[in-house]
Amino acid sequence: MHADRPAVTVMGLGSMGSALAAVLLERGHETTVWNRSAHRAQSLVDRGARLAATPEEAITASPLTLVCVLDYEALHAVLDPVAGSLAGKVLVNLTSGSPEQAHKTAAWARSHAADYLDGAVMTTPPGVGNPEMMFLYSGPHTVFEAHRPTLASLGDPLHLGTDPGLASLYDAALLGLMWSTMTGWLHGTALVGAERTPATAFTPVAIRWLTAVAGFLTTYAPQVDAGRYPGEDATVDVQIAAIDHLIHAAAARGIDNALPELLKSAMERTKAAGHGSDSYASVIEVLKSPADDK
Amino acid sequence: MHADRPAVTVMGLGSMGSALAAVLLERGHETTVWNRSAHRAQSLVDRGARLAATPEEAITASPLTLVCVLDYEALHAVLDPVAGSLAGKVLVNLTSGSPEQAHKTAAWARSHAADYLDGAVMTTPPGVGNPEMMFLYSGPHTVFEAHRPTLASLGDPLHLGTDPGLASLYDAALLGLMWSTMTGWLHGTALVGAERTPATAFTPVAIRWLTAVAGFLTTYAPQVDAGRYPGEDATVDVQIAAIDHLIHAAAARGIDNALPELLKSAMERTKAAGHGSDSYASVIEVLKSPADDK
Ligand SMILES: NC(=O)c1ccc[n+]([C@@H]2O[C@H](COP(=O)([O-])OP(=O)(O)OC[C@H]3O[C@@H](n4cnc5c(N)ncnc54)[C@H](OP(=O)(O)O)[C@@H]3O)[C@@H](O)[C@H]2O)c1
Ligand SMILES: NC(=O)c1ccc[n+]([C@@H]2O[C@H](COP(=O)([O-])OP(=O)(O)OC[C@H]3O[C@@H](n4cnc5c(N)ncnc54)[C@H](OP(=O)(O)O)[C@@H]3O)[C@@H](O)[C@H]2O)c1
Repeated sequence: MHADRPAVTVMGLGSMGSALAAVLLERGHETTVWNRSAHRAQSLVDRGARLAATPEEAITASPLTLVCVLDYEALHAVLDPVAGSLAGKVLVNLTSGSPEQAHKTAAWARSHAADYLDGAVMTTPPGVGNPEMMFLYSGPHTVFEAHRPTLASLGDPLHLGTDPGLASLYDAALLGLMWSTMTGWLHGTALVGAERTPATAFTPVAIRWLTAVAGFLTTYAPQVDAGRYPGEDATVDVQIAAIDHLIHAAAARGIDNALPELLKSAMERTKAAGHGSDSYASVIEVLKSPADDK
Repeated sequence: MHADRPAVTVMGLGSMGSALAAVLLERGHETTVWNRSAHRAQSLVDRGARLAATPEEAITASPLTLVCVLDYEALHAVLDPVAGSLAGKVLVNLTSGSPEQAHKTAAWARSHAADYLDGAVMTTPPGVGNPEMMFLYSGPHTVFEAHRPTLASLGDPLHLGTDPGLASLYDAALLGLMWSTMTGWLHGTALVGAERTPATAFTPVAIRWLTAVAGFLTTYAPQVDAGRYPGEDATVDVQIAAIDHLIHAAAARGIDNALPELLKSAMERTKAAGHGSDSYASVIEVLKSPADDK
C-alpha cells in the first residue's frame, strides 16, 4: 500500500463497480468491497481487496465510498438502513440517474452529515483507468479537490459545478449525443453495406469525418450562445436539399428511414421558423420549443 | 504557373465552386472559370483566373474540368448542349447527388468519350485546401491516379472504388452521420442550456466524448461485419434504462424529445428482436429491416 493512496470502499460490483475496484487495487489503494451478491467479489478478493460482510462495515472501512449500483432505487435499498454510519464520510455516487434524483440524494446525504459528490462515468468498464476517459462530478468544490487524486486513478476527473445535478445532466446530454451518433453511424453502415462495403472499411472514414464534424460544432457553439446563426458555411436550405439524396438512397436499398425523416422534419420546421438561410445550429430553436403535434 | 501544376477548369462558382477555384489558383494551377452568372467570377479573375465566355470555351481550356453546381439538373443544363467538346477530356463532378444519378452521368460521359470521376466534398468551403479534409472519388482507378496530384491541392483525395456511385453513397452515409451527430449535440446543448450552461462550455466536453464514442464505433464495426454483437461493454438493456433519464430530464425542461423517443423505439425493437443483452451495434438489425408500421 502507498501512504499517499487513501483507502477506498466500492459498493456495487457489477461490470462497472468491478472495473472501478480493480483499477483502485492496481493503483495501490487499500480497497474494501461490498456487493449484494457476495460471490461477485471473489476475483477482487483474490487480487487483494478486503470483503466487507455488511454495508455498514463497508462504509466504516474507508473515508471515501464509491457507490455504483443499477439505479437510485438500488442505492437507497442498500444505504438507507445504514445511513447512520455515513456521518463524516464522503459518498461519491457513480450510479446513473436523473438530475432530480441527484438533488434528492444530495439532500439525503447532507441530512446524515455526509459529504456527497454525484458523478457520471463517461466510458465503458474497459476504459476505466485510462486517463483520457472523462469522469464527471458535481457537488461541493472542496470535497472534489480533497479527493481529486483518488478520483484521478479512475480517469480524468472534471468538476462541473456545485449543483449536484450537473453530472447527471451532462451525462444525459452526452449519452443522447452518443446514441444519435451511433445510430447515424449504423444507418450509414447499413447504407454502404447494401453495396457490399464492410463496416470495417466505412468506419475509419466515418471517424475521420467526425473530426470534421467536431470542427462544425466548435463553429456553431458561439452561434448558439449568441442566438444568431449566420449560414456562411452551409445553410439549412442546402442541408434539406442534400438529405433527400440520403432518404432516396436508403429507401432504394430497403433501409429504415425513420431517423433521416425525423432529421428532415426538424430541418423543415427550422426553415418554416425563418432559418432557411441560417446555419444548422438554428435547429436548436425548434428543439427548444417542441412541436404541438407530438 | 508551375510546370507540374496542370491547367484546371472550374464550372460553377457558388460558395463551393469559388472555394475550389481559389485554392487551385493559390496552388499555382492555371485556372479557367465559368459560372451561369458571370459576375460571381470577378474576384477570382482579380486573383488571376481566366474567365471563359461559354461552357464550351471552359471545357476546351483544360484537360481536367471540375463541375460543382447546385444539382444534377443544373449540371445537365450546363453540359448537355456542349457534350461534343468533352471527348478526350476528364470530367470530375463534385455536385452532390444520389448514387443513381452518378451512374447515369458516368454512362452519359462515357457515351461522349470523356473520362469521368464522381466526387464528394467532405468539408465546407472554408475547409477546402486543408489536407486533412476528405474528398471522396469513385470511377476508373487510372483516371484517379493520373489526376491525384491536382486533386490533392483541394484536400485529401480518397479513391473508394471503380463503381461511380460509391462517392455519393458514402457522401449520403456520412452526411446522415453528421446530421444525427449535430442534432444530438444540439439536443444536449439545449438540455444543459436549460440550466444555464453555455454551448461554448458544453461543446469541448461533447467533442472529447465524441473521441470516446469513436472508440466504440471501432469496437462495433467488426461486430457488424460478423453479424454477432457481444454485449460485454454495455448492453441494449442498459441503454434502454439510461435513455429514460434523458427523456425525463429533457421533458422536465420543455425540450423536444422526438429524437430520443425515436432512438428509444429503435432500441426497444432491437430488444424485441432478441438483442437485449447484445451491444448497441445490434441496432443495425432493425435498421436493415424497416418496421411495418411506418
Ligand atoms: N456498464 C457501463 O458501460 C456503464 C457506463 C457508465 C455508467 N454505468 C452505470 O453504472 C451503474 C452500474 O452499471 P453496471 O454496468 O455495473 O450494471 P450491472 O453489471 O448490471 O450491475 C448492477 C449492480 O447493481 C447491483 N444491484 C442491482 N439491484 C440492486 C438492489 N436492489 N440492491 C443492491 N444491489 C443491487 C447489482 O448487485 P448484484 O450483483 O447483487 O445483482 C450489481 O452490483 C448503472 O447505473 C449504469 O448506468 C455503466
Ligand atoms: N456549401 C457546402 O458546404 C457544400 C459542401 C459539400 C458539397 N456541396 C455541394 O456543392 C454543390 C454546390 O454547392 P454551393 O454551396 O456552392 O451552392 P450555391 O452557393 O448555392 O451555388 C450554386 C451554383 O450552382 C449554379 N446553378 C444553379 N442552378 C443552375 C442552373 N440551372 N444552371 C447553371 N448553373 C446553376 C449557380 O449558378 P448561379 O451563380 O448562376 O446561380 C452556382 O454556381 C452542391 O451540390 C452542394 O450540395 C456544398
